Amino acid sequence: MNPISLDDALASFDALWSPRIVTRVNDYDVRVAKVRGEHVWHVHDDTDEFFLVLDGELHLALRDPERTVSLAKGEVFTVPRGTFHKPSAPHGARILMFEPTGTLTVGDRHDEVPGHVDATTGHEL
Amino acid sequence: MNPISLDDALASFDALWSPRIVTRVNDYDVRVAKVRGEHVWHVHDDTDEFFLVLDGELHLALRDPERTVSLAKGEVFTVPRGTFHKPSAPHGARILMFEPTGTLTVGDRHDEVPGHVDATTGHEL
Repeated sequence: MNPISLDDALASFDALWSPRIVTRVNDYDVRVAKVRGEHVWHVHDDTDEFFLVLDGELHLALRDPERTVSLAKGEVFTVPRGTFHKPSAPHGARILMFEPTGTLTVGDRHDEVPGHVDATTGHEL
Repeated sequence: MNPISLDDALASFDALWSPRIVTRVNDYDVRVAKVRGEHVWHVHDDTDEFFLVLDGELHLALRDPERTVSLAKGEVFTVPRGTFHKPSAPHGARILMFEPTGTLTVGDRHDEVPGHVDATTGHEL
């Protein structure tokens, strides 16, 4: 029942593409992650996914139609359910996400998951 | 389908305690608000409410037990459902909230709403 500093939360781990759950809101998680390089093409069939960039720049490659959305610090974007997407951050970024508890980082369908991507529903802080 | 800058969103209006909906995530809203002074004691019987301070400092007075949580820039806190609370910000703050679409700013039960508080489910940007 204390406030949580996002900076402190992000300072508590080093793993990339491995979200930590900072708090819950009903049956949703607020997660933060450090990212650099490329994630994997994946889709959440049944849920939207919200991104806020806390630092750095995040690219979201999207399909149908194929395009890339670039988010700078302080920018937000919601990937609609059913939209294949691949996050990437060539120079690194720190991000906050909202999504239902239990949502897998690699979605319901995905390309082969590279070793540097953590397939998880989020870790506790 | 473009990213939204929280700074631009906040620059688009002046009203205090009058949240704007910047995006939706399933049946939840991401809202931003400018706040200064005191809100009103209220409770959301059926939903938690998430706060992230983007700038400034936000106080959340809480009941049962009575206490105040202070959030600086970059800090987050979730007020549990059923907890009476009164936000305030003596020096002003800019905040982001995450809560179910349709959630009223003054909750399900509240003290008399002062004229400077907007009783709303959030305005479109």
